Formats: sequence, structure tokens, C-alpha cells
Amino acid sequence: MSSSETVEVSGHLMDSGILSRILDDIREYEGDYVIDRFEVGHEAHDTSTATITVTAEDDEALQRLLMRLQTRGVNQVDPGEATLSEAELDGVFPDGFYSTTNLPTKVRLSGRWYDVANPEMDCGLVVEEDADGPRVITLPMSDVLVGMQVVTGASGIKVQIPELQQEQGGSFGFMESDVSSEKPQAVLVRQVADGMREAKDNGKKVLWVLGPGVVHTGAAPAMVAMVHAGFVDVLFAGNALATHDIESALYGTSLGVDLAMGRGVEHGHEHHIRALNTIRKEGSIRNAVESGVLTGGIMHAMVTHDKEFVLVGSVRDDGPLPDVHTDVIEGQRAMRAKLPDVGFCLMAATMLHSVATGNILPSSIPLVCVDINPATVTKLADRGSSQARGIVTDVGLFLEQLAGELVPAYRRS
Amino acid sequence: MSSSETVEVSGHLMDSGILSRILDDIREYEGDYVIDRFEVGHEAHDTSTATITVTAEDDEALQRLLMRLQTRGVNQVDPGEATLSEAELDGVFPDGFYSTTNLPTKVRLSGRWYDVANPEMDCGLVVEEDADGPRVITLPMSDVLVGMQVVTGASGIKVQIPELQQEQGGSFGFMESDVSSEKPQAVLVRQVADGMREAKDNGKKVLWVLGPGVVHTGAAPAMVAMVHAGFVDVLFAGNALATHDIESALYGTSLGVDLAMGRGVEHGHEHHIRALNTIRKEGSIRNAVESGVLTGGIMHAMVTHDKEFVLVGSVRDDGPLPDVHTDVIEGQRAMRAKLPDVGFCLMAATMLHSVATGNILPSSIPLVCVDINPATVTKLADRGSSQARGIVTDVGLFLEQLAGELVPAYRRS
Amino acid sequence: MSSSETVEVSGHLMDSGILSRILDDIREYEGDYVIDRFEVGHEAHDTSTATITVTAEDDEALQRLLMRLQTRGVNQVDPGEATLSEAELDGVFPDGFYSTTNLPTKVRLSGRWYDVANPEMDCGLVVEEDADGPRVITLPMSDVLVGMQVVTGASGIKVQIPELQQEQGGSFGFMESDVSSEKPQAVLVRQVADGMREAKDNGKKVLWVLGPGVVHTGAAPAMVAMVHAGFVDVLFAGNALATHDIESALYGTSLGVDLAMGRGVEHGHEHHIRALNTIRKEGSIRNAVESGVLTGGIMHAMVTHDKEFVLVGSVRDDGPLPDVHTDVIEGQRAMRAKLPDVGFCLMAATMLHSVATGNILPSSIPLVCVDINPATVTKLADRGSSQARGIVTDVGLFLEQLAGELVPAYRRS
Amino acid sequence: MSSSETVEVSGHLMDSGILSRILDDIREYEGDYVIDRFEVGHEAHDTSTATITVTAEDDEALQRLLMRLQTRGVNQVDPGEATLSEAELDGVFPDGFYSTTNLPTKVRLSGRWYDVANPEMDCGLVVEEDADGPRVITLPMSDVLVGMQVVTGASGIKVQIPELQQEQGGSFGFMESDVSSEKPQAVLVRQVADGMREAKDNGKKVLWVLGPGVVHTGAAPAMVAMVHAGFVDVLFAGNALATHDIESALYGTSLGVDLAMGRGVEHGHEHHIRALNTIRKEGSIRNAVESGVLTGGIMHAMVTHDKEFVLVGSVRDDGPLPDVHTDVIEGQRAMRAKLPDVGFCLMAATMLHSVATGNILPSSIPLVCVDINPATVTKLADRGSSQARGIVTDVGLFLEQLAGELVPAYRRS
Repeated sequence: MSSSETVEVSGHLMDSGILSRILDDIREYEGDYVIDRFEVGHEAHDTSTATITVTAEDDEALQRLLMRLQTRGVNQVDPGEATLSEAELDGVFPDGFYSTTNLPTKVRLSGRWYDVANPEMDCGLVVEEDADGPRVITLPMSDVLVGMQVVTGASGIKVQIPELQQEQGGSFGFMESDVSSEKPQAVLVRQVADGMREAKDNGKKVLWVLGPGVVHTGAAPAMVAMVHAGFVDVLFAGNALATHDIESALYGTSLGVDLAMGRGVEHGHEHHIRALNTIRKEGSIRNAVESGVLTGGIMHAMVTHDKEFVLVGSVRDDGPLPDVHTDVIEGQRAMRAKLPDVGFCLMAATMLHSVATGNILPSSIPLVCVDINPATVTKLADRGSSQARGIVTDVGLFLEQLAGELVPAYRRS
Repeated sequence: MSSSETVEVSGHLMDSGILSRILDDIREYEGDYVIDRFEVGHEAHDTSTATITVTAEDDEALQRLLMRLQTRGVNQVDPGEATLSEAELDGVFPDGFYSTTNLPTKVRLSGRWYDVANPEMDCGLVVEEDADGPRVITLPMSDVLVGMQVVTGASGIKVQIPELQQEQGGSFGFMESDVSSEKPQAVLVRQVADGMREAKDNGKKVLWVLGPGVVHTGAAPAMVAMVHAGFVDVLFAGNALATHDIESALYGTSLGVDLAMGRGVEHGHEHHIRALNTIRKEGSIRNAVESGVLTGGIMHAMVTHDKEFVLVGSVRDDGPLPDVHTDVIEGQRAMRAKLPDVGFCLMAATMLHSVATGNILPSSIPLVCVDINPATVTKLADRGSSQARGIVTDVGLFLEQLAGELVPAYRRS
Repeated sequence: MSSSETVEVSGHLMDSGILSRILDDIREYEGDYVIDRFEVGHEAHDTSTATITVTAEDDEALQRLLMRLQTRGVNQVDPGEATLSEAELDGVFPDGFYSTTNLPTKVRLSGRWYDVANPEMDCGLVVEEDADGPRVITLPMSDVLVGMQVVTGASGIKVQIPELQQEQGGSFGFMESDVSSEKPQAVLVRQVADGMREAKDNGKKVLWVLGPGVVHTGAAPAMVAMVHAGFVDVLFAGNALATHDIESALYGTSLGVDLAMGRGVEHGHEHHIRALNTIRKEGSIRNAVESGVLTGGIMHAMVTHDKEFVLVGSVRDDGPLPDVHTDVIEGQRAMRAKLPDVGFCLMAATMLHSVATGNILPSSIPLVCVDINPATVTKLADRGSSQARGIVTDVGLFLEQLAGELVPAYRRS
Repeated sequence: MSSSETVEVSGHLMDSGILSRILDDIREYEGDYVIDRFEVGHEAHDTSTATITVTAEDDEALQRLLMRLQTRGVNQVDPGEATLSEAELDGVFPDGFYSTTNLPTKVRLSGRWYDVANPEMDCGLVVEEDADGPRVITLPMSDVLVGMQVVTGASGIKVQIPELQQEQGGSFGFMESDVSSEKPQAVLVRQVADGMREAKDNGKKVLWVLGPGVVHTGAAPAMVAMVHAGFVDVLFAGNALATHDIESALYGTSLGVDLAMGRGVEHGHEHHIRALNTIRKEGSIRNAVESGVLTGGIMHAMVTHDKEFVLVGSVRDDGPLPDVHTDVIEGQRAMRAKLPDVGFCLMAATMLHSVATGNILPSSIPLVCVDINPATVTKLADRGSSQARGIVTDVGLFLEQLAGELVPAYRRS
């Protein structure tokens, strides 16, 4: 007794490769399809529209397939009304809960469409009622509480692929062709600089997600210059980036000499442990800056310019620094709290924090990931951050050039 | 007003390259040295002994250099007595605290040498007094409490490089030459199997540290066979390994077909989120096994055979599973609690958890790291896990062959 | 004064992503298009047909765009007659020569369609007349001679995408999703074994393209077993594979010990130079086998089983072996001469020879590329070997398992 | 009946790790040793001297071990006289021929020491007599002719490790610590610039070895600027670098747009084939420049500035360009002919040509290898280019910054 639903999708379907991905999804979920109608865009800038009837072996399978298709911007022709179920356990969604995308999303309740405030992938949708009527919010699984009204199934939901992504020729196709070290990198530097300036011009914040390689490649001075110039509004990182930066600032002579001589230092166990102890003694990075203990580096620049940072721990951390969230779920909440008004995101030299940020970022925020390892960039796209643009290059030289673009006065002495 | 100390080191100094590393350390710490005496081992199996006077610009620098040299097995000729200072803040060591190595270590108090119970790198040494006299324990920075007696400076401490490492030609030299994909891998499989059997024969536990690539490369059946056969006593992993394993067990038909056809599945957002919710609803992985919800896979095998596992979360986690430690410092404590009686450790397909385990493992436990990415293996050695042996190969085929070696009955159907 | 032509393409256009690649090509060549007709395949197994009018700024640009589109299986609706021009210089095609694809190709001359005998990419088409009428052959640029009749422009030419590739969901799309180390590798081993058996069952030859990593990973015994069992009909390699194999056979004791102990040997300069000199003294590898100088290894097995091999030199070669073609163009010719009747091709551990073989192989021959480095596999697809299937894994373990599949008696002692 | 010889080595033996490599070699060749004397350098800048008696199972094994040890700068205490044997076949050395190192070498004949003119690894030494007395030259195996007098065995030969390498802490040790992407890359750029300037100041030539990635990363304008400024005296490359450069110059508009937009182009088969045909028609790159067909790019700059280049083919080449040596042994000879007066060598983005150049370069020429792939750099050191310094970074940004350092007027428009 199979179940069917008619869905539709519009956009640059053919030149973006999105249609082949949709049909792949249907196969992967063991469904079947008939293409009812296909209105092709005849000229290069026209959009196309496809209407497809998808079939799955039962309604549960169908609902799951419909949710999957929504990650591609495919909506039901007749979406109907959203179905709500009550959560019966803290931290557990009701069976058949709607699993979200990171796309702009609307939910229909009692015949009216409501915007979802904070799109984030792999969450649930919770409907809250107050004096102004219903409000639909995206909620991660760990934050659901008994009694909350959670959307189940795929009915009554519409998503929208942002115009930008469409024009880029579709997310993944775009991504794939970009994961390569054989690109005119200098041009890419300029494009990233333009993206950041545009975000600032629009009153938006620039979010940076950095790994410790930023310090090891000697890019700390470039980062400091960009913090000074106002291009670093929010920083997400782990214990390692902050510790290596602070270690370099505290034991500057020694490390400085090695940086200046261009010779690598084996990751000494002792400097960084002592740096951690020093900041723990002060109680926080800000305290260490204010007491004059910490006088340079990226974290010092962030504090003196009153910029926000969220440091989240990992199981391999020493210390950690007192500012580090040791509970990763708390850390995710702290990161989410900084997302409003972010208009551009640059990730560099960290797979862990890049994926973590990609997980919570709406698809509408332009996202660039810089890493010497192509796998980091591929992973991000595989996880659903379809707007991500990858640049496989040396992080140190990239940030050096980016600082040169963004901060005309910046020249390495 | 420079400070000096005379140190000595014995072993296969010349053929292990350890002497050059010692002199590199002295240069890196901006110290100077005179080799007072060098008794060379004339024949291939003789050991050599060097006595070296090292000088640094002041006593603080000297103490730090001496600690660094101890990571190479270099001790003071006249170690003197350990110096103790009281911790004045929770979670903060006194200034000049002795930063530990992962080598077997002794501390001299009131003229007597005491063994340190649980060597671990990058910690402090705390002296506790009870009816039986003093006891020296290794304590991570985050666990120190006001009033504890902490060893400061490098006096009164001796470390010992395990015989095994010496014979292998020294840790890092050995490591470096092994980080290559151009090795006769089939032979290496047998050596790992021998190491595990030897540990079991000696009544020791085998510790596995696994990443999600184990599931993606189709090695779950091989792992299950090795769990059944008793070769997996303890498992350290993150949320991803357990979730992918459970997802594969719960939605087996679909994923199973793809595994059998050898085609890759894009990391779907929906299956794993639903798998997480299902287990969260049960309350724990064990509950899910006992209630019959979870009936296959690696985690199921661990539960049914009453094997121990520690899952520690990371900032990129969805869910997570109810068994996951979301606080990474708690997670580290849970991992440490499983280390006693471990006699062999195999790490596969995870940089995060491999480094985390390497951080807390004594150097006396044989350690093999298997990864297709050479950087994972190099990182481990750089961080001080000098006993680590790296195998750069495909994790799926490696585990398949290892199961064939360890479990004669194991043949893939 | 722009030029236009109407083209059509049939097949699984939407689920293969091929349409988006076609439109990408048009954009890249700065052309424009109108989709005149699009007959969509309504159900999953139906094919679709698109008719597109493409426009370029002049006829030369149009002809080049049309050639480009033929690599996607796109043909002119009204192909007309082929145009011929005479070559005026040895080794130089006439201006506007038709640049070939590796697809099955037909050429229309005087109203009749003629099959092209040996499809190969990046060559020209030469028409020869003899008593039986015209014959169209594919000729590489370096082999063209004054007076030859060469096809120019894209008129009068039809290509056909093999059915197999269509069903796999199109070449590149298929490829991309397969370039990953996260695959159930054991299943892939079996699929490769099946492909080889099927080729043998059909009376076809199996072609192997191997790099020296095959010897370094200890896979020589596995290779020897597969040669003995008749699964290696033709071998393409460079000087290095043969030299390392022979070096290992000649200085077996020493190297053998190291292989058995699983320890890597730095690439010694002396063994291989002496091995080269020894074979050069014998005059050829066959001589060395027959005189009893060479008694084991892969090359020995090839000779004793009268199998064919082509060794082509490179600028980094020492020696080289007397069997090596030092002229690379001669080497390519020798390789081409072995292609007839090849029915399956496996490439392992060599980017240079894999790309070289991919260059001359018709797209109709199934092709699997095994390498631990994803870049090798990606490069192959980028260069146009669209039928290539990539397996990112350890070559040593892969060949070990493959030998186990193909040669039931094969077990490592 | 074992054979023994006493050897000695001087230098920074302990801090360079060279002694451990010497003892590794003895073990690898299954020899034994007694250290007779070890005079240690007591202070940091002193050199040490070791006298070692090595034993092998017979004289042939001993001679081979002694040759191996010479690659480490180890000489016989009593070297005696060189032994000569006559070559009996063209292209074949006599049995037991001395296999050369790339170190400065002396040969003793009739009681006098003669310098070897052109050190190169993996060759033989040939003694020629003329009116001025004997002359010792290094000859590759393929160039030996019947009747030549060839040095056999290790007697009568002394090598010398250049001072520079000693101070760098020994070749391989230095190399290993440098193969990392985590380095302050901007500093390294400056060091390379300094090395080039120093070579030019000393009247020496700068040799560049480039792969096609230089063009793909958009670094052609930077290269052109450095050619104009006189920093590129000799260029070694393959067909691909020159073809991609010329293709980009000929079809500039289209490719230019893509470079400027920072979007990657799939490696089109058609542009480069047509570029090859165009230059083949002109007869040479120089002709194409002089006839006005080729008006830009790296090769154009080399021609207009009368700089030397050697292009050597490979089995994967299309075309090739008429300037390409299709015979690789001829190509090696052409490369060797350009080595005199080279004072600095930079290799970028090519493993094939880097190894080929490393094979023929004396160890006294400073050598820097830039590649985004660590394996390229490691391979070079493994093959014996012990002076090589590796920089793992993005080639495009590296050359961009290097041009900025070397050519003050250079700024990207």
C-alpha cells in the first residue's frame, strides 16, 4: 500500500545539476517517481519548473523522503497544514518529527504561513503560542522539553533556496568544482575581501572560525591587523587556537626567533601548559589583558577591541583556558547566540570548528572555508553547508594577502 | 647570571638519533652545553652514556629546559630533592610547577625515591600524605585543588625511557620512518594481531579508539567479529562513530543495500538525526539493546559482551547519544578511569580521539595508529606519544584483514 | 555575425547531471543557447531528449564549441558531411581540425556513415582511401604526415555515449561520488574481480597499469599469483616498477628481511643502480630470465607466462632497463599497439602511467583506478576518462584481497 | 670469511643525527661495526670525529656498504688507490662499479688526488687520460662506452659533506622537520628571495623547475615579472607547463575571464590540443614568438629575454611542443648541460621534474622545493637530495609573494 505526493521545484534546474540530485535522493530512499510536467527555461537565464509525483512504500517512508527533498528546495504542490505532536520526554522529539534544513522555511498553521526565525539544519520545529499568536522556532534536539508542540511529517512546510545559490549553479555542483588547489588564488583573496566589505557596508558582522594553524603559519600579525581594522566581529575557535596564540605572546622571544628564522618548532609540551596555567591563574583572558599579563596576539586584540569570541573545548584539550566552554552543548548554545546579524563567515584551518559552525549556520550567510586540506572543504559541503565555497591553499599566505587587501597600511616589517 | 646543571642520559644514543634531539632542545630553549663525557658503546648492541652540562640564562629557564630534557629520558646527575609548593587556587598549579612526561617517573622526597603511579604527559605531580607515607600522583591541571602539594622545578625527579622504545631505535626516529603508505601492509597487520594476542595472554586489556570512518569503510562486521572474539575490551570514541554504527543498524535495509553495492551515500542529514532521537528516547544504548530496539552493529556487540566504552562529545555533534559525555573534561576523566590494565592500544580513523587518548596514555603501552591520512599519525608523534607506530593505510581493508588474522572463523559472506 | 547550430542529446539527461555540464560548456566557450524542445522521460528508467540551438560569435568558435559538446555525447541534428583538409606539414594538423573524443564515433563521407576504428581522445581523424573505399582512423598529432586527409570542423560526425556509462548516472557525476576513502572497500574488491572475470569470459584481455608502490607495499607476491592465474595479460609501467621489482628479486635476502619485518627501507641509491646494470648487461629482462639471473618477481612471472608488457621511460629514470622505451612518443605507440582486445583495465599506484593510459583508452573499456591519493583518481576523470571508477585505498591490501578473490589457492605463507 | 675496513667521519655528528643514519645503513646492509674512537665536540659549535671498523660478510658486500656510507660523508681512513676496470659493453658498467654520490668527490690515482668535475648521484666514475694527465668525470650508465676506464669498488675515493649542510643540522634531519604546512610561510618567502639574490650577486644562475600548477594557480604574471627582472636564468619543465602557459596566452580572453573570476576550468581537451598544433606549425616556441603568434606568458618572456629552457617529455604528453625532448635520456643530457654555474634552484608544483633535477644536481647547490603536497618534498629527500629544503604551501600565493619580494615594482593590477 504505497503512498504518493506531488512536489515541485523551480530554478536553474538543469544547469545546476539539482534535478539529478533530487532523483538520486529518491532512489536512495527507495522511492519511485513520475515527472508530471517539466517547463524548461528556454534561454540561458530562464528558470525551469518541474512537477514530480514521488511514491514510497508507506507514509512514514514518504514523509522522510519529502523531508530529504526539502533540503534541495523541493516543496509539496499542496503542502496542507503542519501537523503538531507533543514532546513526551525532555531532549527527545516525537516520532516522525520534521527534521529541518538550513534554508529559509515557512510553516502553515491554521491556513496561515509563518516564517521560521532561525533556520538551522538537523533540528526540529517547535510552535510556541503567545499573545501575538503562534511563533515557529528551530530547536536542537537537546533543548526540547516535555510538552512542547513539535512539527511532525513534511506537511505544511515550504523552504526556499536563496537566489544567490541558484545563480552560482547550485550548491554542491559549485562546491565540487571549487575544491582544488589549482585555482588562481590571488583572485580568490580579493573576492573574500569584497564579501567582507559588503557585509560591513550592510551593517552586518563578520564571523571568523579559526584553528591553531593560523598561529603556526605565522598569520597572527595579519589577524591582529584585521581585528584592529574592524573586520573581525566574532571569533569561534577551540582551546588550541587561543592557547597557541597566547603561548606565542607570552614566550615571544623564543618563539619569535623561530618564527623569524622560518624554522619549525616541534610542538613543545611545556610552553603551552605553562601558558594555560598563567591564564587560569588570572581567571580569564580578559583579566590577563587587563592585568597586563597578556600584551599581544589575536586574543589580546579581540579583548582590547571588545570583540566577541566563543571558545569551545574538545576531548584533546589541555587546561583548558578559563574562557573555554568544556560542555560542548553549552558551547553550541553560546555559538548560536552570536549568529544574529552575521553577514559573512570565513573559516580557516580547522575541520572541527568549521563543521560545528556549518551545522548551525543558516544557508543564507555567505561562507568561505580556507584549508590546505581538501577534505575539510569537502566535508563541509557533504554535511549540508551548500553555500560553502572552498579555497584549498596555504592559510598563512592567504591571511597575509587578505590583510594586505583589507588593511592598506598593513605591510609586514 | 646564568645557571647550570649536569645531566646524563644512557641508551642507544647514537643509533636512535636521541642525542641530536637533546641538543636541538637545548638550542630551542636558548641554552648552551658542554659535553663533559661521552662513553660510547663500541659494538652494535652496547649502550652509550653522555654527561652534559647545560646552561641557561637564569634558574627559571634552566628548570624549564631540564623538564623538557626529561621528555627525552635525560636526568640530572645529582637530582637532589623534589621541591613542593602549595596550590593557591583550584585548577591552577603553583608557578614553576613540574610539567610531566608520559614516561615511568620517580620522585625523591626526604631522601627516598617514590614511583609515580600513573604517568601522563602535560600534568603536574601532587604529593599526598597518608598513614603509609607519601604518595605521588599525576594530576591534570583542571583537577588541582587549593592546598595540594605540587612538585615545582625539575629537582628530585628521574624518568626512564622504556627498554622497548630504546631498541626500536628511539621513538621519533622510528616513527618518522614509518609514516608512509609505501609499506608491506600485510605484514603490519600480522604484527598488530601479535601485539593484541600478547596483551591478552598477559591478562591485559586491549583498548580501541575508533572514528566513524570504520563504519563508512564497511568494517563494522569485522569489528563485531573481533568484539565477539574478545579482542575489544575498551572502546573510546565520539558521538559520530556510535551514531553512524547505530544508524546503519537501525536503517539497515537501505544502507545495507548501498554497502553491498559499493556505492557511497552522501552523508544524509535525516537518518542520523532520527537514529539519535530513537536512542535518546530509550535513555541509553544499553536500554536500546535490552528493549530490542538496537539489534546489531559495533555498539550492540559491545553491550551484549559487557565491554566498556567511553563516548566523549565534540562541538560538531548532533544529538548527542545519551551515553555521550558532553563535558570534555568529564570525558577525559572517564577515559583515564579505563586505562589501568590496558596493555595494547589501537587507534583507527580518528585524529581527535587518537590525540586525546595519546595525551593520557603512559608511554609504556604499545600504541598503533592506523589512518589513511599521514597527518594523523605525524600529529600523534609530534604531541609526544613517542611509542606510537603509524600505519598509513585503508582502515576498512586493514580491519578486514585484522579480523581474518585474529578470528580464524571470520570470513565475509 | 554570430553562427548557430541545432544539436540534440538523448539519455538519462536529468539524473546524470549531463545537461548541466553541457550548459556549463556553452558558457565556458562564451556561447549562448535556446532549448528548443525537451522531451522528458517521465519514469525512472525512461530516457530524455533535448534539442538545443547553440550560438557562438563566429563559425570558428561555433565549430570548437560543437567539438567540445561531442565529448558529452551531443550531436548535430543535421550533421551534414565531414569536411576534409590536407595536412601541409608532418606532425601538424590543418587549422580547424576535428579534435577527437574517446567515444564510439562515426563520420559521414559522401552520404555514408563510417565507423572510426580506434577512438582516442585529443587526436585527429584521418580518412584513407583504398580499394574497399574510405577508412577513418584516429591519429595522434605527432603521426600526421604531409598529404593526409584530415577532418576539420564538427560537421559530419556523430558520437555515442556507451549505454553502460549512461546507466551509471553519467560519467563525471559517477566519478565524483566515488572519489572517497570512505567506502566499503571489501565490496569494491569483489566488483573489480567480477569485472576481470567477465572480461576473461568474453575472451578479452585484462590490462594492468602499475607504479612502484605495488612493490613497496609488499604486493608483488599477490601480483605474481594473479599473473600465474592468467589475470594479467598486458602490463603498462615505467622503469621504476620494473626496477624495484627486479631489485627486490635480485637482492632478496636483504630486502626480504625488511619486508618480512614490516620496516621501511629508505630508497637506497645503490641496490637499484646495480640491479639496472645487471639487467643491462643481459640485454633485456627476458634474457635475464632465460640466463637464470632473474628468478622471481612480477617481471619474471610476466616473461615466464609470455605476457606482454610495455615499459616507458621518464625524465627521472636511472638506467634505464634495456626494455624501456626512452622515447615517450615511441612508448605511446607501443602502448596503443596492445589495446586491441583489452576488455578491462586496472590502474594502481601511478598517476603518470594512469593518465598516459587514460589518454589512449577508448571510453568503452571499463577502467578502475586504485590509489591512496585521491588526486590521482580525480585527475583521471578531469582529463576525460569518464568511464573511470576510482577507489581510494591502500594498494598493497587491495591487491592482497584481490588475489584472494581471483586465486582461491592464494594465501600468504 | 668476513671483510673489514676502518672508516671515519667528522662533523656535527651528534646534533645532525648523521651517526644514527650511518649505523642504520650498516644494519640495513647486514654489516657489523665497532666504534674504535669517538672524539666528541664538547661545545655547541665543535665538530666530532668518529672512527668505526665496519665488517661485512665478504669483500663485495663490504665494498657496497662502503659506497653506501660515502653518501653520508664517511670515508675510509686508509682509502688506498682507486681500482679501474674497462667497460666491456656500451651502456653497462663493469661489475662492482663505484656508484657515485652527489657530494664533492676526490679520486686517488697513482698517489695523487683528483677532483671529480661534476658530482651527480647514481652514476659511475670514468677516468680519461689526455696530455694534461688523468681527468675523472661522472658518467651516467647510459653514456658509458666500451673501453672506458671505470672506477670499481670504494677504494681511493673521498667525499666531503659541504659545510652548509653540516651546519643546518644534517640533511635529512633538517628536511624532515621542514616538511610541514604549519610554518611561518611569509618568512620562508623572504629566505628564498635572499638565496636567489645571493646567487645572482655571486654571478651564478638561478634554475627554476616548474609544473603546470604554476599556470593553474594564476602565478604566470608573477613568473613573467621575475623573468623580466632577471631572476629566471634557466627553466626545466615538461610539455604541460609550457602548453598550459601558451594555451593561456593564445586563448587569453576566455581563460583570462575565468582566472579573473576565480572560477576553475575543467581541463578542456580542445584548447590545449589546438595550442600544441599552432606552435608545431610554427616549428618552435621561439619561431612563434618571432612571428608574432605568441605574445605573452612565461615561455614568451623566456624567449624575449634570451633565457634557456629545457622541456622534457613524458608518456602522458599530447603533442608535444616541438621544443620538447621526446627521448628522456636526451632530455637528461640537455638538462645536465645547463647545470654549470647554477647557484640556486627552486622547484615548484612538479614531482616528476623535481625528482629528475634532484637526480642530477650536485649537493652543493642550494635547493628549495615548493609544493602543496608534502609527498613531493619527502620524495626528494628520500631520493638523496639531502640539501633540499621543502616548503609545503600554495604555489600560486608563494610565487605571488616571491615576485613582490624580488621585484619591488611588481603589484597585481
